[in-house]
Amino acid sequence: MIQFQCDYTEGAHPSILKKLEKTNFEQTAGYGNDSYCESARNKIKKACGCEEADVHFLVGGTQANFTVISSALRSYQGVIAAQTGHINVHETGAVEATGHKVLALPSGDGKITAEQVRKFYELHWSDADHEHMVQPGMVYISHPTENGTLYSRKELQALKNTCTGLGLFLFLDGARMGYGLMSEASDVSLEDIAELTDVFYIGGTKVGALFGEAVVITNPTLRKDFRYLIKQHGGMLAKGRLLGIQFDTLFEDGLYFEIAKHADDLAMKLKAAFLKKGYKLRYDSYTNQQFPIMPVEHIEKLKEKYSFAFWEAVDKEYSAVRFCTSWATKEEAVEELIRDIEAL
Amino acid sequence: MIQFQCDYTEGAHPSILKKLEKTNFEQTAGYGNDSYCESARNKIKKACGCEEADVHFLVGGTQANFTVISSALRSYQGVIAAQTGHINVHETGAVEATGHKVLALPSGDGKITAEQVRKFYELHWSDADHEHMVQPGMVYISHPTENGTLYSRKELQALKNTCTGLGLFLFLDGARMGYGLMSEASDVSLEDIAELTDVFYIGGTKVGALFGEAVVITNPTLRKDFRYLIKQHGGMLAKGRLLGIQFDTLFEDGLYFEIAKHADDLAMKLKAAFLKKGYKLRYDSYTNQQFPIMPVEHIEKLKEKYSFAFWEAVDKEYSAVRFCTSWATKEEAVEELIRDIEAL
Amino acid sequence: MIQFQCDYTEGAHPSILKKLEKTNFEQTAGYGNDSYCESARNKIKKACGCEEADVHFLVGGTQANFTVISSALRSYQGVIAAQTGHINVHETGAVEATGHKVLALPSGDGKITAEQVRKFYELHWSDADHEHMVQPGMVYISHPTENGTLYSRKELQALKNTCTGLGLFLFLDGARMGYGLMSEASDVSLEDIAELTDVFYIGGTKVGALFGEAVVITNPTLRKDFRYLIKQHGGMLAKGRLLGIQFDTLFEDGLYFEIAKHADDLAMKLKAAFLKKGYKLRYDSYTNQQFPIMPVEHIEKLKEKYSFAFWEAVDKEYSAVRFCTSWATKEEAVEELIRDIEAL
Amino acid sequence: MIQFQCDYTEGAHPSILKKLEKTNFEQTAGYGNDSYCESARNKIKKACGCEEADVHFLVGGTQANFTVISSALRSYQGVIAAQTGHINVHETGAVEATGHKVLALPSGDGKITAEQVRKFYELHWSDADHEHMVQPGMVYISHPTENGTLYSRKELQALKNTCTGLGLFLFLDGARMGYGLMSEASDVSLEDIAELTDVFYIGGTKVGALFGEAVVITNPTLRKDFRYLIKQHGGMLAKGRLLGIQFDTLFEDGLYFEIAKHADDLAMKLKAAFLKKGYKLRYDSYTNQQFPIMPVEHIEKLKEKYSFAFWEAVDKEYSAVRFCTSWATKEEAVEELIRDIEAL
Repeated sequence: MIQFQCDYTEGAHPSILKKLEKTNFEQTAGYGNDSYCESARNKIKKACGCEEADVHFLVGGTQANFTVISSALRSYQGVIAAQTGHINVHETGAVEATGHKVLALPSGDGKITAEQVRKFYELHWSDADHEHMVQPGMVYISHPTENGTLYSRKELQALKNTCTGLGLFLFLDGARMGYGLMSEASDVSLEDIAELTDVFYIGGTKVGALFGEAVVITNPTLRKDFRYLIKQHGGMLAKGRLLGIQFDTLFEDGLYFEIAKHADDLAMKLKAAFLKKGYKLRYDSYTNQQFPIMPVEHIEKLKEKYSFAFWEAVDKEYSAVRFCTSWATKEEAVEELIRDIEAL
Repeated sequence: MIQFQCDYTEGAHPSILKKLEKTNFEQTAGYGNDSYCESARNKIKKACGCEEADVHFLVGGTQANFTVISSALRSYQGVIAAQTGHINVHETGAVEATGHKVLALPSGDGKITAEQVRKFYELHWSDADHEHMVQPGMVYISHPTENGTLYSRKELQALKNTCTGLGLFLFLDGARMGYGLMSEASDVSLEDIAELTDVFYIGGTKVGALFGEAVVITNPTLRKDFRYLIKQHGGMLAKGRLLGIQFDTLFEDGLYFEIAKHADDLAMKLKAAFLKKGYKLRYDSYTNQQFPIMPVEHIEKLKEKYSFAFWEAVDKEYSAVRFCTSWATKEEAVEELIRDIEAL
Repeated sequence: MIQFQCDYTEGAHPSILKKLEKTNFEQTAGYGNDSYCESARNKIKKACGCEEADVHFLVGGTQANFTVISSALRSYQGVIAAQTGHINVHETGAVEATGHKVLALPSGDGKITAEQVRKFYELHWSDADHEHMVQPGMVYISHPTENGTLYSRKELQALKNTCTGLGLFLFLDGARMGYGLMSEASDVSLEDIAELTDVFYIGGTKVGALFGEAVVITNPTLRKDFRYLIKQHGGMLAKGRLLGIQFDTLFEDGLYFEIAKHADDLAMKLKAAFLKKGYKLRYDSYTNQQFPIMPVEHIEKLKEKYSFAFWEAVDKEYSAVRFCTSWATKEEAVEELIRDIEAL
Repeated sequence: MIQFQCDYTEGAHPSILKKLEKTNFEQTAGYGNDSYCESARNKIKKACGCEEADVHFLVGGTQANFTVISSALRSYQGVIAAQTGHINVHETGAVEATGHKVLALPSGDGKITAEQVRKFYELHWSDADHEHMVQPGMVYISHPTENGTLYSRKELQALKNTCTGLGLFLFLDGARMGYGLMSEASDVSLEDIAELTDVFYIGGTKVGALFGEAVVITNPTLRKDFRYLIKQHGGMLAKGRLLGIQFDTLFEDGLYFEIAKHADDLAMKLKAAFLKKGYKLRYDSYTNQQFPIMPVEHIEKLKEKYSFAFWEAVDKEYSAVRFCTSWATKEEAVEELIRDIEAL
């Protein structure tokens, strides 16, 4: 079975394992206070063009999301997100478990607009009973979104302007950041993201690391005592250097970007094959997740040899499915899949 | 200014004040362990036809809602509710503050159906990633709803059957219970409600009391240690007898029902006047809240003399508004309002 | 049975009931936005000598405590309190339920000192692992304490200086405030308390009201959006005017102080009788709670006619008990009790 | 600098790294649903003599502690622990952040007794105001304790009998489990622990793994939906196989026990050297943490070459410090330290 199920089916980029082995018997301080974390933090800050940011390494995305969100909000505030946002759907209510409502906005493609945010904000404050309603305090976006789509620089700028104007924090979930940055359709750089958000994270789990997400806090208001918050929420790894070593390796000589591009390139090949075959696409993605709408019988046939995710039924004959490529996807696997699709 | 703004603009039924005065210097035990509470609990249990229920008195509705809901759910469970439900909209995220997501279902009239609940439940459990999603654990309905509408006995029975079959608790918010029970359109009795839910409350604040809601727990699973929960959530009144005295008075000789009928009767008069005038109704309510859709100029004119709630704009010329009657509404006030409407 | 069990065995001062009755059919806005609340807020601000303070009315003390505390702390911060403090012992973990640890300091008489606070703070910050420990963020004191004892102006000043110097908020729980202010042993005025704390509350439940606590926020940092917090925590009374009317009455012509003095005077008579009888005192209280250490047989004898609280066993023959007087205690009752003690 | 600072200064046992490398490009399902986790779970269940237990892998100890504790308690319940317990001191209030009070019992050596638990329980339930106090619901012990001490089989049996009799869950934090099991002073086996607790975890982070704790739930009541809880609390690793591979390796051919014994043996050599030198011991530990009380000048001298933890000042001349050995400690390092101590 060849897996296109998700982007975390393999281990880590070999150079990470090599570094882990090489450093294995070094004795270092715990909890991220080691030289590898320090080096990784510096490389990330440099890559973000933001020397004065704070960088923290957490083990996973759910942890990063609820730790960041709950750190920024007062108890009666909620976080605005697309209804399809990961925090609204796939984190078992982790944000609510910290006491905060996710204020879900409708979205067709996984994105939300500055205009939607502004309207929601104004609706809240113009209501005579606004004290009886959850007050918006932060906006959460994912980039790429859960549907593989991307914000343009202009859209990000509009969101940032709106948030700043309204006193809302803007948080970007970059679990698949690399695949967004390296997309042929992207006009957004890592520096742009650092400039146009208050806090964001660079995903490692889905882009070459064993695990790990690098939270970058650019807004000084959000920096205070963040390590207390990580610890309290169970996110402080004892052997913190494991995170430092991984990100230090990924941000050495552009490895993170190079392996992300690999995945995007293969995804574009797949996309071309889907279109050539005449499949429609559920979302027009230019990143590592592709969502063809296939005849059910084609899906059944492919499932004999490939694993991929069912997305949703379109009608009796067609369903949308998701194929993921990743840093680890083999070119041969994609070519074999394309041949099998052509033969359907 | 004559107020039809809401159903809590006055104090309490005079017989309650009289009883408070008469008993003022009696010395009683605190926290609901007094003879007035005991008597009130017995009367309510009798009225519910449910001797073995537990009855607790809380000060307000938000408190009652989040105390009941959080007592019934495990941390990863959420409560299903209409998107218009009070807990989803007007409690400043009080349920989320206890860690639980409100799982909002679409609703046109404030009600949800057994079928909606079943589908949502099945969608959850059929999802391969269901452990990554909030698990439904309880269904919350309000009766009457926030839109003045009512569940029929058949609808309630279907909800109860579905909930029982699926292992979900059914909780009924009866903040305006009296106005529902006494509606000419209702085929649901208090005994029915006690039989067809796991827990519910009988609203006092909006039906003749200074304040207070009587939570009735019929499902034995939910009874354990409920007084700890009340105390922890700040809902245990030191002079608990104030709640006992009020409900003891309201449930003496059917006072609660009588004063609720008064409000419903006046609301029906208003409704007839709206229809006679040719107004459409936003919701077809047979209880104390009425939602006419009026020309904006009529609204402006009436606002000079009456206070009532803006509900929502329909178009440039028309808006829906809400008029509430209550146990305290004077017949003359309604008649005056009707005359003024006719004269528009 | 004559009750000295606690200070909330009766209803309310008759002038409150009279005012409730007189205003019963007035129509007012809900949630504290009425003229009675406005008037009461102004009287309280004047009494506190603090025009720019915010005053909010909550129903009960537990509610007031956890709402204030959780509003002031970030999630990883805790509140310093005497181990005997109400929040640490008698609120079913309400503060912890909002996510915050109570950092309990040893106390013999219910009080804590500026020196204790400073040492605890320094211990925290000097620990290499301080990020792994709950960070102190606020100091909670009760005045009078749960043991009837009082802070002197000098002690309060020292606490305030220390807190301000260390960046900690100082919160004073005044559930029995009146009995403290009017004590013959007190050199602390209401203005002093307003000056020497960041936030405090004036207890109504135990001092003449049916229920209600007036939270006074003097520190501007703590004022923002406090009404959202009240609502979210279930503390916003729909008919808010009930609280306004009560405090407006209590702060009219010094009624609050007058009825508190009544209780203190009777308590001092009782204290004198205990001492005359040769009883030792568990705490040297000059307020309405008295803690004599009595022979067990005397206790048993008195229990036939009086109700009072068991406090703790001292040894096999002696136990400490608590007698409370209140605004409602009758002079004859105290005299009868004194005669019965003398006759033992 | 040679580190005896803690037991997580190195990476992982080489055989773990080897296995990670060997399996790196295998494609597996996420979130613990892979064959390595399955194999590891089976080995652990076998080692525990408890086939019907549930085994879950979490990344760290704080996460394991608050996830287990909050899963077992209702909101008004607290967890009994030694005041020195990790959850009470060194987890930044993570348990309180889930809403639960830690009910701290005094302890001289890190242990608590069945008798203490029983008395605390009885004190709670005999109090007339018990509904106003946090109800004990679980007992937390660590084995070895934070002070290196161990429960005997008899003590564990007494705790279990008491807990079962009183309806309390017994939870054992085994962050350093291996060092306890292999101690020359221990009469407790892994099977004993599985039999005498309701839930416990086997620490990997401090005993040979890069990270990871294996939670073993033997009480069926606590098993339901535990994976939802892990996910909600941010503890579900996407590439769950990383945990499976590590524990599968550690429980292959007794590796876990072998490497733990190595650390204990070296710790015993150190202990002998301390005693020979005439140092007193702060705690009489037979596990990998040793707590000599040294002259301050000796400490200063050793700090030039070794890193170890300051524990507490005893008086002006003496302080207690902590030396940790681990699975990774080199025999030569211990011998060098011993020589340097002898030379002081």
